Amino acid sequence: MKLISGVYDGRSFIGEWNDNGSIFNLTKAAERSGKTFARSLLEGIQQGSRFMADIYELKDEVEDEEGLSLNIKPEDPLFAWNAPIERPLKNIFCVGKNYRDHAIEMGGAADIPEDIIVFSKAPTAVIAHEALIPLHESITSELDYEGELAVIIGKTGTSIQECQAHDYIFGYTILNDVTARDLQQKHKQFLIGKSLDGTCPMGPFITLKEAVQDHSRLSIETKVNGEVRQSGTTGDFIFPIERIIAELSKGMTLEAGDIIATGTPAGVGKGMKPPVFLKTGDVVEITIEGIGTLRNEVK
Amino acid sequence: MKLISGVYDGRSFIGEWNDNGSIFNLTKAAERSGKTFARSLLEGIQQGSRFMADIYELKDEVEDEEGLSLNIKPEDPLFAWNAPIERPLKNIFCVGKNYRDHAIEMGGAADIPEDIIVFSKAPTAVIAHEALIPLHESITSELDYEGELAVIIGKTGTSIQECQAHDYIFGYTILNDVTARDLQQKHKQFLIGKSLDGTCPMGPFITLKEAVQDHSRLSIETKVNGEVRQSGTTGDFIFPIERIIAELSKGMTLEAGDIIATGTPAGVGKGMKPPVFLKTGDVVEITIEGIGTLRNEVK
Repeated sequence: MKLISGVYDGRSFIGEWNDNGSIFNLTKAAERSGKTFARSLLEGIQQGSRFMADIYELKDEVEDEEGLSLNIKPEDPLFAWNAPIERPLKNIFCVGKNYRDHAIEMGGAADIPEDIIVFSKAPTAVIAHEALIPLHESITSELDYEGELAVIIGKTGTSIQECQAHDYIFGYTILNDVTARDLQQKHKQFLIGKSLDGTCPMGPFITLKEAVQDHSRLSIETKVNGEVRQSGTTGDFIFPIERIIAELSKGMTLEAGDIIATGTPAGVGKGMKPPVFLKTGDVVEITIEGIGTLRNEVK
Repeated sequence: MKLISGVYDGRSFIGEWNDNGSIFNLTKAAERSGKTFARSLLEGIQQGSRFMADIYELKDEVEDEEGLSLNIKPEDPLFAWNAPIERPLKNIFCVGKNYRDHAIEMGGAADIPEDIIVFSKAPTAVIAHEALIPLHESITSELDYEGELAVIIGKTGTSIQECQAHDYIFGYTILNDVTARDLQQKHKQFLIGKSLDGTCPMGPFITLKEAVQDHSRLSIETKVNGEVRQSGTTGDFIFPIERIIAELSKGMTLEAGDIIATGTPAGVGKGMKPPVFLKTGDVVEITIEGIGTLRNEVK
């Protein structure tokens, strides 16, 4: 199952993405049936199993009818995407240098981490699939993309063991960890270079973990204006997802709704010779096998 | 004016701290007068001037009466402190190495930053004045204190100029940026070593900016078990508060309720020869001139 946050005719809703290219408006179905239903995907994730039970009931009970428009086409001009979690509960956790070849392109073999590196992006940076990435040209001249698989935590916990980590995952989405390379370098700790407004495109859906056969073998590809720049697989992670969840939750409570970006493969603009940064009109598309394609234009 | 978040007889409330050592229960006064009132200090800060107007009206109109107990003594066993902002909207922004002597004790003169360094602490780390700091002995053997002045943002803005920065401040509090030094070093980016549960004591009050004559000349002192360890003044900041707000808001929206810890003076446990870290039973007290004293025991 794939869940989305969107706006239809000015109203926010939670929907189910069907692979035939239509979206079932769960929020409207709940209104139709008189059921109370989560007001946002984040609230639903926090509700846990009740949220999933509500979704299955709505899908069973409520049928689309003439004039009800429960099924939305994304081409419909009244529809707009929201980020699946529009306003995260806290900063987004990001794992740095989790692919060997990316660590090397950012410096050299000495940059391959022995211990996990985690920084964060401010929640104000989040934007939706198809939203414009601001160029921030007065602040940076080195805006760069980073295609990443993001894990959405589904259950609150501390000191989670690797063997239990799967129980704590709600699903997966795609995240573009857009980075101002000059600020990242200048300010040493990465937060500033990673948190400019609009530099955290996320979406288009959350694919529930049950729909992902093996998260440790997903291909990930980033294109800029159609040209393949990054091409990797989550099998190349230095720190696999189970390890990331275990390391992060050692003494720090992970909460339902938390977002963890798992790192980016080689092929960022800074790694090119000479480096090539984003400019107005560039279109960045990140595709992860079984998860979807996140597309954003730079403006 | 000094505002607190607390619990009285199991119910959360907002109060005004009077320097005679009593707390006026504004939440209860609002109930008494039938007024709607912010449910938390964070919500009040987000309301802006309406919140302040409500407080002044309540102070004018509602008088304490027999049996009403609008004035609470902190010694009252039914009273407990909350952190002024119990659950921040996002990670707490922290400025690294903002006092020259602290930068030197953490490494050497080469560690004095030319550009501002900003990292973050997860909001799950926040605890109240008088709450216990967990030692996390299975995760770290180098837990250390850092006494800091924290700025509470009162108004949302982007690209705030230094000369306007004061308009965006709501007030000040005290923050102990408790740090697991071994994790801070091992994981390179500071987030993990700074975000263990209970490692962000904050309080006891928010002192409104109007009550602080000159935030650039406040003495700050940290004692461990009564022994003075840190003694500095905000006059020693490498990056003054106006500059911090300007740098952070360049392209990144700062929001009402955001918390910025401004860095710590020399004298942390890691800087001692040999280093001395926190142990069970240690009491850390941070006093900032005109702001208050934040006290926490390690357990």
